[in-house]
Amino acid sequence: MATSATYRRAIRELASFLGCEPTESAVYERRLATPADEYASSLLRATGTEWLLLDDGFPAPDEGEGWQRMGELAGCASAPVLRIERVAEEALAAGERRLDELLERVRDAVTRARAGGWAALKTIAAYRSGLDVGPPDDAAAAEALARGGRRLEAKPLVDAVLHAALEANERAGPLPVQVHCGFGDEDLLLPAARPGLLGSLLERYRATPFVLLHCYPFVREAGWLAHVYANVCFDLSLTIPHVARPAEALREALELAPFSKLMYASDAARTPELYFLAARWWREALAEVLPELLATAEVEEAARAILRENALRLYGLA
Amino acid sequence: MATSATYRRAIRELASFLGCEPTESAVYERRLATPADEYASSLLRATGTEWLLLDDGFPAPDEGEGWQRMGELAGCASAPVLRIERVAEEALAAGERRLDELLERVRDAVTRARAGGWAALKTIAAYRSGLDVGPPDDAAAAEALARGGRRLEAKPLVDAVLHAALEANERAGPLPVQVHCGFGDEDLLLPAARPGLLGSLLERYRATPFVLLHCYPFVREAGWLAHVYANVCFDLSLTIPHVARPAEALREALELAPFSKLMYASDAARTPELYFLAARWWREALAEVLPELLATAEVEEAARAILRENALRLYGLA
Amino acid sequence: MATSATYRRAIRELASFLGCEPTESAVYERRLATPADEYASSLLRATGTEWLLLDDGFPAPDEGEGWQRMGELAGCASAPVLRIERVAEEALAAGERRLDELLERVRDAVTRARAGGWAALKTIAAYRSGLDVGPPDDAAAAEALARGGRRLEAKPLVDAVLHAALEANERAGPLPVQVHCGFGDEDLLLPAARPGLLGSLLERYRATPFVLLHCYPFVREAGWLAHVYANVCFDLSLTIPHVARPAEALREALELAPFSKLMYASDAARTPELYFLAARWWREALAEVLPELLATAEVEEAARAILRENALRLYGLA
Repeated sequence: MATSATYRRAIRELASFLGCEPTESAVYERRLATPADEYASSLLRATGTEWLLLDDGFPAPDEGEGWQRMGELAGCASAPVLRIERVAEEALAAGERRLDELLERVRDAVTRARAGGWAALKTIAAYRSGLDVGPPDDAAAAEALARGGRRLEAKPLVDAVLHAALEANERAGPLPVQVHCGFGDEDLLLPAARPGLLGSLLERYRATPFVLLHCYPFVREAGWLAHVYANVCFDLSLTIPHVARPAEALREALELAPFSKLMYASDAARTPELYFLAARWWREALAEVLPELLATAEVEEAARAILRENALRLYGLA
Repeated sequence: MATSATYRRAIRELASFLGCEPTESAVYERRLATPADEYASSLLRATGTEWLLLDDGFPAPDEGEGWQRMGELAGCASAPVLRIERVAEEALAAGERRLDELLERVRDAVTRARAGGWAALKTIAAYRSGLDVGPPDDAAAAEALARGGRRLEAKPLVDAVLHAALEANERAGPLPVQVHCGFGDEDLLLPAARPGLLGSLLERYRATPFVLLHCYPFVREAGWLAHVYANVCFDLSLTIPHVARPAEALREALELAPFSKLMYASDAARTPELYFLAARWWREALAEVLPELLATAEVEEAARAILRENALRLYGLA
Repeated sequence: MATSATYRRAIRELASFLGCEPTESAVYERRLATPADEYASSLLRATGTEWLLLDDGFPAPDEGEGWQRMGELAGCASAPVLRIERVAEEALAAGERRLDELLERVRDAVTRARAGGWAALKTIAAYRSGLDVGPPDDAAAAEALARGGRRLEAKPLVDAVLHAALEANERAGPLPVQVHCGFGDEDLLLPAARPGLLGSLLERYRATPFVLLHCYPFVREAGWLAHVYANVCFDLSLTIPHVARPAEALREALELAPFSKLMYASDAARTPELYFLAARWWREALAEVLPELLATAEVEEAARAILRENALRLYGLA
């Protein structure tokens, strides 16, 4: 059996929900014995979610069902989030090698996003060339593009695509922009994913609401950004279902940041168990931490803001 | 009402001191109803401060009263701290465009500082070009200066001014040098403000006592520097009145650093409430943390060192 | 008396073991009054160690007794760890100025290491030019070598030596490679020692088991690497006997990392007191933290893995 504290705790938590022995094999058997939709739906509905916003670039579009299907399983409203790099890579896959046409395609998708039902944009620049996004350099970007390849990873090109998207977004009346920050899969250079590197980008696009995702182990740095920039919010996403001390991450998040800037999220994508665990552990952490930091009369206000109202307001879902 | 945990706690703390309801409006009314000097003085005197050392470059000299006035309000001795960048920017404002004359002006101010009553020097290089201060490069500095502007921000120029000040200071018999580290206002690139970047500067000016200010969220890094360099002390300054867990910051500070290297400070500048909150919360944090880390007989020794004696010794005020 | 919390605690811990008053002078007198071997042996044997693995490059080989002698004093098996930079610096001291011959000497030592009884390799690149190890650049390395000097510190040369060692090690059937990460003595630029910088090296040498040493204050970053890379383990080494909250370091280590990836170590080298303190405080920290993170039935499994079994398996000592 896997030996991380969180995995072990997850098995116990799932077993309790499923009504089986707290062992890996019992949980696995229960999963296999339940029809897949029924199993997923029971976990998703136990979260009490009203709105699901899902990245449209992970897993790859042809790998499975998307945001609509997850919303049906959860019995709630849902909407997609437009992954900027997905749009650019579809153009690369189609053989696009002219920079102006590539950027125009990105701008076009972004400009149409709100009308098309997308609730936000998202960038995974942290995975490709890091969050120290430089000013646009079209010559270097064109040169990188000319070298070919279907993966958007050369820094000048990643940065050029991101600037094109952010400019078009501000012109169109900006949607919120989610930014992958901090830990993730192994194809990430962690020091390049620290949210503090974003400074100049957050200043350049002042009219854009940014949402910093995940952030671990740079949670305090994200909290400082949310504290000093009016246009920055953050969540802890996969920190909560993956890190053994969700309450400690929450304490660090709220050391500086106002609770009007922190939002519930799970990064669960297509894994029903993660929806369930994130919802359970976020609420437990809030119940533990908020009374330490606030007066009794303020606790419910803060919990409702973090779990619901901040997101409804930011994404215009209310 | 603002939604940070610290703001909410500050309202309750101030209301308790002012004897009013624990609401923002009640505190604000009390403030407006009390003559300004009386209000400021009551908060400042409640801190039990013996000596106030104030940065002479913030707020700008023409924006209000300075170190003398704050000392009078607090009923204690006071002295100014010479902000190196203020001196250089006064020269820029006066139209100085020759590097040797600019640096001479900085050297001159530093050399006269002790006789003029300044208790220390201070640098805010972290706000301008970062703490990875390179070796002096006069050619690059002269070129940056020739480009004009009243703000000292080009890296070679910021570094050249800092080296000039530090060299003159060591020749004159050094005053302690305060270094802004870690968080602050939004015109700061947080990764460039990490104290660990200072390594070579701390080695180059071995005869100079350095004091690392604020340090959050790099408190542990500052503690390590205070642990390995004989000429490095640190404080937590604005960490204590702004971060929701002052005790946790203190724990991190003392994980490695000797308590003879940590000093009380508030960064309160001209805000009477911050003097009061810092004094109250520092003492609470010390009362909570020191008994966890030390034997009973050592707690008072450590508290007196951090609150008073380390600073008297370092700044030669005893 | 020194004023770090850990020093004060160490005096009390040693006094309790030695049966004397809890004062610095009483501990020191007891040390002087006991024959050196008897004193060292009593502390080493109190740790209950089965195997000692010691860096063969610190202290310098001619400064004292080595791994064999420490093993005799501890009454247990012992083996040396080959410090890659030691081999290269012996070549520099012998006047070697041809890059191919220098690298061949490194490759040769590494290739013979297992047969010669070495249990692992070790690199202190963090102390010399940082953990952002670039791809091999023989021209730049040759140029740096031609400039002379007995200390391996120019980045292209440090990196070239490390690549030569790692390549030879994989060809020979790899020994584990220990990597100094995080804090240490003052001749270290802390931001260059963060384990997250190792990303590309860990990917390039996929067949090599890496062990990240010390890691403070980047313990969470090390835990993430151990979580996502199958070939990465870590310890906390000198974090435990030097940092005032060993339990907190352990909590951070296990936030993400599986307990099969964390290993007991002390970095005690030739200091008998550090062996004793590390052993005592590691066990205390495990007894405090593991029950917080795991079910009762899992605690002993995790403690045995961290204290013993992970290392026996990794180093092939079982």
